[in-house]
Amino acid sequence: MTTAVIYLAGPEVFLPNAVALGAAKKALCQRYGFTGLFPLDAELEAGDTTELAWAISRGNEALIRQADRVIANLTPFRGPSADVGTVYELGFARGLGKQLMGYSNDPTPFANRTWAQFGITGEPGPVGDIRDRDGLKIEEFGLHDNLMIEGGIRQAGGLFISHNASVNDRYTDLTAFERLLQTLV
Amino acid sequence: MTTAVIYLAGPEVFLPNAVALGAAKKALCQRYGFTGLFPLDAELEAGDTTELAWAISRGNEALIRQADRVIANLTPFRGPSADVGTVYELGFARGLGKQLMGYSNDPTPFANRTWAQFGITGEPGPVGDIRDRDGLKIEEFGLHDNLMIEGGIRQAGGLFISHNASVNDRYTDLTAFERLLQTLV
Repeated sequence: MTTAVIYLAGPEVFLPNAVALGAAKKALCQRYGFTGLFPLDAELEAGDTTELAWAISRGNEALIRQADRVIANLTPFRGPSADVGTVYELGFARGLGKQLMGYSNDPTPFANRTWAQFGITGEPGPVGDIRDRDGLKIEEFGLHDNLMIEGGIRQAGGLFISHNASVNDRYTDLTAFERLLQTLV
Repeated sequence: MTTAVIYLAGPEVFLPNAVALGAAKKALCQRYGFTGLFPLDAELEAGDTTELAWAISRGNEALIRQADRVIANLTPFRGPSADVGTVYELGFARGLGKQLMGYSNDPTPFANRTWAQFGITGEPGPVGDIRDRDGLKIEEFGLHDNLMIEGGIRQAGGLFISHNASVNDRYTDLTAFERLLQTLV
């Protein structure tokens, strides 16, 4: 087994049932022979001082250094893109040379999601230079998010998959997560 | 001089005048004795094939590997957080042990921005467990974005500053960028 320890990056830490979700993801890891490390946020986030924020940051970076692989939940979070904390961790792991995987519970392409949320009325265009209501270019590569994300996973030899979860289970559906674990055994 | 080469991460690549902005940032670097590297997106983004996306991803990661430091424009982009491509690059650079700096042209704290865009009507609360309209926790650390971002910059010994740019100059105002360069000479 080459990837015993997996850091579980994702926006689960912001959910009301963060601790239970972390436990569920760790249990799935164990079922497939891996050790899952869940971000510390949920355990430490009892106060709101800046020092606590630095402690969480240091703690999560340390957990990623310990891990062989990061599996990132890249489901869109408060906008068309993934949670930036998760994306930071994915980039950090890539810089450290870790193995990477990612999934999204929304299969809609990035360009369509961005247009739906930040486009203008009417049809987008012209193809190759689609811009949002602020004149900002919308990537048209058919990817699921900013190209650096899927690009980094691909360069690391990793896999990205998407799954059409129901809206209510958007952050809790573990189908795609488990599918990724299954490819590792 | 310890930091000769600076990678200029930021959402400028999505602006209509991306190339001119890149040139302006590079010229400022030169004025202070540094070499600025601007992301390749603006130069390569002539098509929309997936292969081109991978080429940009590989190219930008290679530029960051060449750099001694990343200065990231973390101005909020299509939502309460910074551009995820920029954040990926910041994390990547942190994993590589590079020096980091960041700035935002919006000084509003992250919690306030998030509440304004994703809060419910009425007052937020209770303090310590403020949640958005989807029940997702809003970080209350008084930071400018997700704690992993400023946390990573801080751990790298870097500086993050914010500047109150006018709305129209939100992505083009180089005041904070230049201020960071000035701290390096």
